[in-house]
Amino acid sequence: MKIYFSGSVSGGREDVELYRQIIRRLKEHGLVLTEHIGDARLDARGEPGLTDAEIHDRDLTWLSEADCLVAEVTTPSLGVGYEIGKATEWGKSVLCLFRSENGSRLSRMIAGSKRAVVREYRNVGEVKEIFAEFFRGPTPDN
Amino acid sequence: MKIYFSGSVSGGREDVELYRQIIRRLKEHGLVLTEHIGDARLDARGEPGLTDAEIHDRDLTWLSEADCLVAEVTTPSLGVGYEIGKATEWGKSVLCLFRSENGSRLSRMIAGSKRAVVREYRNVGEVKEIFAEFFRGPTPDN
Repeated sequence: MKIYFSGSVSGGREDVELYRQIIRRLKEHGLVLTEHIGDARLDARGEPGLTDAEIHDRDLTWLSEADCLVAEVTTPSLGVGYEIGKATEWGKSVLCLFRSENGSRLSRMIAGSKRAVVREYRNVGEVKEIFAEFFRGPTPDN
Repeated sequence: MKIYFSGSVSGGREDVELYRQIIRRLKEHGLVLTEHIGDARLDARGEPGLTDAEIHDRDLTWLSEADCLVAEVTTPSLGVGYEIGKATEWGKSVLCLFRSENGSRLSRMIAGSKRAVVREYRNVGEVKEIFAEFFRGPTPDN
């Protein structure tokens, strides 16, 4: 199972420790192609050694090779939205993780996409069960 | 020319007057399918009378019928990113308008997309010339 994890980069790195913990749990279910998103050394400029086009093309190649996209969608992000748009178009499984505790609202376009599974959570402890359900997939008698 | 205009809704409505002025200029170039984005009566909840799925499906139908997507990308937005992801996938012309004055940075995924034209601007007066160039398209001797 190849997993593409997506989270806000240029919108701020406040959540980087959370992303790191989510990625750690994701690795119990497969190979995470984008582990650098959870690296505290990655700042909001992204990767200064790469051009925008190089980042874009590399990330879309990874996404195209992935079996699923897992996106943390609490912090609004154009890049994360763009990847959800591509992944749903390409028939990938998509899981969106959202924390509503700060009064933030999930984009209605994402909430309304039938090809994306949206799960609210309050802390990273709850993510374990969400992943167990998502990666188990539909049970045969469903 | 059918134009789909996209701007942040759930991320806040601080820019609604700007969106309204952009839409007014867009209407000089064609039919704007999403004029409600520039309506001050639309609050951050979106359209309470519609379900998420109804908004999603209506908006993607409009996007599929449009000749081009014009997106204001200064305020990070999952929905706007999602629409850029779909539009570039569907071969639509895409123009992204970005104001950098607040120290904000454009998502490197959007900046790196070869299928999207990104133009920085400082005020709505500059948008007129950007639209004139974009809607004129490539000149025959290019």
